[in-house]
Amino acid sequence: MSATLQTDLARIVGADGVLDAGTTAYGHDTAIVVGLRGRPDAVVLPGSAEEVAAVVRFCAAHDLAIVPRGGGTGYSGGATPVDGGVVCGLERMAAVRSFDPELWRINVDAGITTHTVQRLARENGLSFPVDPGAAEESQIGGNVATNAGGPHCFKYGVTRQWLLGLEVVLADGELARFGGPARKDVAGYDLTGLMCGSEGTLGVVTGVWLRLMPAPKVAIPVCGFYADAREGCEAIGALMASGVVPSAIEYLDGRTLELAGGGFPGGAPPGAGFLVVAEADGSEEEADELAEALGAGAVRPDARALWRWRDGVSVVASTAHGGKLSEDVAVPLEHLAAAIEQTLEIGARHGLPACSWGHAGDGNLHSTFLLDPRDAKSLDAAQAAAAELFDMAVGFGGTISGEHGLGVLKNGFLSKQWTPGAVAAHRAVKQALDPAGRMNPGKKLP
Amino acid sequence: MSATLQTDLARIVGADGVLDAGTTAYGHDTAIVVGLRGRPDAVVLPGSAEEVAAVVRFCAAHDLAIVPRGGGTGYSGGATPVDGGVVCGLERMAAVRSFDPELWRINVDAGITTHTVQRLARENGLSFPVDPGAAEESQIGGNVATNAGGPHCFKYGVTRQWLLGLEVVLADGELARFGGPARKDVAGYDLTGLMCGSEGTLGVVTGVWLRLMPAPKVAIPVCGFYADAREGCEAIGALMASGVVPSAIEYLDGRTLELAGGGFPGGAPPGAGFLVVAEADGSEEEADELAEALGAGAVRPDARALWRWRDGVSVVASTAHGGKLSEDVAVPLEHLAAAIEQTLEIGARHGLPACSWGHAGDGNLHSTFLLDPRDAKSLDAAQAAAAELFDMAVGFGGTISGEHGLGVLKNGFLSKQWTPGAVAAHRAVKQALDPAGRMNPGKKLP
Repeated sequence: MSATLQTDLARIVGADGVLDAGTTAYGHDTAIVVGLRGRPDAVVLPGSAEEVAAVVRFCAAHDLAIVPRGGGTGYSGGATPVDGGVVCGLERMAAVRSFDPELWRINVDAGITTHTVQRLARENGLSFPVDPGAAEESQIGGNVATNAGGPHCFKYGVTRQWLLGLEVVLADGELARFGGPARKDVAGYDLTGLMCGSEGTLGVVTGVWLRLMPAPKVAIPVCGFYADAREGCEAIGALMASGVVPSAIEYLDGRTLELAGGGFPGGAPPGAGFLVVAEADGSEEEADELAEALGAGAVRPDARALWRWRDGVSVVASTAHGGKLSEDVAVPLEHLAAAIEQTLEIGARHGLPACSWGHAGDGNLHSTFLLDPRDAKSLDAAQAAAAELFDMAVGFGGTISGEHGLGVLKNGFLSKQWTPGAVAAHRAVKQALDPAGRMNPGKKLP
Repeated sequence: MSATLQTDLARIVGADGVLDAGTTAYGHDTAIVVGLRGRPDAVVLPGSAEEVAAVVRFCAAHDLAIVPRGGGTGYSGGATPVDGGVVCGLERMAAVRSFDPELWRINVDAGITTHTVQRLARENGLSFPVDPGAAEESQIGGNVATNAGGPHCFKYGVTRQWLLGLEVVLADGELARFGGPARKDVAGYDLTGLMCGSEGTLGVVTGVWLRLMPAPKVAIPVCGFYADAREGCEAIGALMASGVVPSAIEYLDGRTLELAGGGFPGGAPPGAGFLVVAEADGSEEEADELAEALGAGAVRPDARALWRWRDGVSVVASTAHGGKLSEDVAVPLEHLAAAIEQTLEIGARHGLPACSWGHAGDGNLHSTFLLDPRDAKSLDAAQAAAAELFDMAVGFGGTISGEHGLGVLKNGFLSKQWTPGAVAAHRAVKQALDPAGRMNPGKKLP
C-alpha cells in the first residue's frame, strides 16, 4: 500500500483502522483451499457506518474498488481482492445496537458474529435459526451478503426470511436504510431482499434488523442408516409424507460416512452406505413420527453431540487428501438421489475421489471432489468436474448455488441457469446501483 | 378503443381475448370506494405467457402503457388504468402447471385464485398459509405483485416467503424465469423477491412456483376481551412472552366491535373495548398456554365460524356510513397501542368517525375512516387523515404500507419513510428495468 493511500485512509478511520496491505489473511477467504488469493491495495477496518460511507466516497473519488469482508468464511472467493482494491473489514463494528427479546427482535452492527447473535437469542429464550457452518467466525453482514443457510433453514428459511431491515452504504457513499423494526412492509421495492445475497456487489451492509423467534421446546434428532442413496432418499420421501415439518433433514453419502462416520455419536454401523438425519423440534410425538418414517433401526443420538459432529464433517473431508472443492448445488428434491450418484460419476470421470453430504430436505448437496491442493492438475480437474456438476444441477431444474453464491469461482455460470432476459435484468440492476463497477468488482458475474 | 387497436390485439390474443374498453369493471379496483377510477384504452385477457409477452412487445412498439390486473381486489389503485393504457387481465391463465403434494410444491399460472391454491393444498393434506382478505377473487399473480399477507402471516410469513420462482414478462417483452422448483437458490440477485411487491411496475407475472407445507394438525382460536387498547396490548405482550408462536394474533378496537361484534361467534360481551384473537396450531397445550396469556375470561370460538366472521369485518365497517378509507400502516409492536389510539384522534381532528382492526402481532393496523362516498368533503377529509396517519407510522419507525402497497393512493409518501439514498436506489431500479416507464405507469412512485 502506498504511504499516501495509508495516510488518506487513516484520516477517515484512524491509524488503528488501517492494516498493512500485506496482511495475508485479508488476501483470501476459504476459497484459498483451491488456491484463490489476491492482494489488497489497502485494508481498512472502519468503526462506524459513517466511516464506511466515508471510505466508499473516498474510493469513488479515487477510482478504487471496494471489497467488503465479513468473517472471510465464504467458499466462493466473494471476499478475495482478486484485482486489488480496498478491503473493508467489518469486524470492528460488532455492537448490539438494540435488543428487545420481548419483541423477538435485535438490531446489530454488521460485523457481529453469527454465533454471538445465536447466543444472545438463546440466553433470552429465543432462537436465530440461521446456522451456516462457521458460525463462530462468520458475521451477520456476511450472512446477509450471501443469504446464508444451514441445516435448520429447511424448516425456518434462509437469512432473507429473518431480515426486517438493513443499513447499507451504496456505491456513491450514501448511507441508505431499507426496512427497520416493523415486521411487515410493502411500501417500496424489496431492496432489503435485493441486497441480501448480492455478495457485496451492490453495497456494503453496515447494520441489520433481525427477527427472532421463541426457542423451540425440544430438539430431538432421529437418524437412519441405509444401504445407498436410493434407499435413503425413499426414507426422506417418507419424512416429507409424515405430516411433520422436521426442523432439519440432512444426509451423508457412503463415502463421506467412511471418512467421518467414526465420530457419529454412538458409532455408525459398519458398511452403512447412507445416513439421513432428521430433527423434531415440536414434541416427542413428532420425533416418534419421524422415527417411524425413517423405518426400523432409527436411532436418537444426543442433539448437541450430533450437531457438533455434523459441523465437523466438512473439515474431516478436507483432511483425507489434503484439500477439497466442495460445491453447493441444489436440485428439486425428486432428483436428489440421482444428483448424489452423479456426483460420484463426475468425480470418477475426472480421476477424483468424490463424496457428498448436505441439506437433503432442501435438495442442497455439498458435492465434494477430494484433491491435493499442491497438485495443479488435481485443482484443474476439480474445476472441470465442478463445471459438469453445474450442468447437471441446471439440467435437473436446480441451481449452481444453494448457499455459497457465485463469488469468483462460479462467475459466468448463471447464464447457464437463467433465461437471457433474466440475465439482462441481473446486469441492468448491477449497472443501475453501481454504474462505475466499483463494489466488489469481478464477483457475481452472470 | 380504436377499431385498429382492437384488431391488432385480437391478432395476438384472439377475438375472445379482447374486451370492450368500456367494460367498467376493468376501469378500477377496490380503490373505487374512494372514487378512484380510470378508463383503459383496451382490455386484453391473454391465454398464455407467450401471448402476454407478445402484448407487451406490441405495446412497446406502439408506445402504449401496460396495466397488469389480477383479481382487482387491491385497495390502493394499483390495477386502476389512471392514464389509460392496455389493461392486461390474467384470469384466462388459471391452470395448475404441475402439483407435487409429496414435494410440498405447486406451479401455477398467475391468474389462478388464491382460494383455489388454498383448496388444492388442503385437499392434499397441505397448507398455503398466505390468506389475504379476498381469497376467492384475488389471484396468485396479484398476491405476488403486492406481496400479500393476512392473519396467518404472523407465524408463516407473507407471499415472498412462499415463492420458489417466477415467470415474468419484462418491460421489453422478454419472458424471463427466476428460480423454479428448487427450494434454495443464491446464484443470482434475488429478482424473484424484487418482482414480489413491485405492483406490476417491473414486469407482468405470468407463472409462479409456490412452496407449500403440511397442514397444521389443529387450529384453535383463543380470544380475550379487554377494556381498551392499552389492556389489550398488554395481553398481546403476554402472548409474545408465552413461548408459543401463535399462528395469528389479531385485534379489533372498541369502535369496530360496536359495528361488527354482534356477529362474533357466541357473542361479544357488551361494552367490550378491545378484542384479541390468537390461534394455536400446534397442539391443545399451545392453546392452553395462549389462553393463560390472555387471562381470565378467554374464550375458544369455533375456528371456522371465527374466521368467517373476521373476514367480514371490513365489509361490515364499510356499511356503517356507506364507505370507508381503510389504511394498512404497520408499526413496531411496542407502538401498537399508541397507533390505535392516535387513529381515533386523527379521525376526530378531521371530523371522521374512525376505528381500526388488524394483524396485531405484526403491528399492522387497518386504520379506517368511515365516510359517505357521495360526499366529496368527507373523501378529502379522509385523504388528509390518511396523510397524518402515514406521518404517525413513519414517526414510530414503521411503514405507510404493511399490505396494500403504494398503488396510486400512496404515491409520493415513500420519501417520508426512506432515506434519500434509498429512494434514489428505488428510482434507479425502476429506470433500469423499465426505462420507457411503460409498466403500470403512475404507480408505486416513491
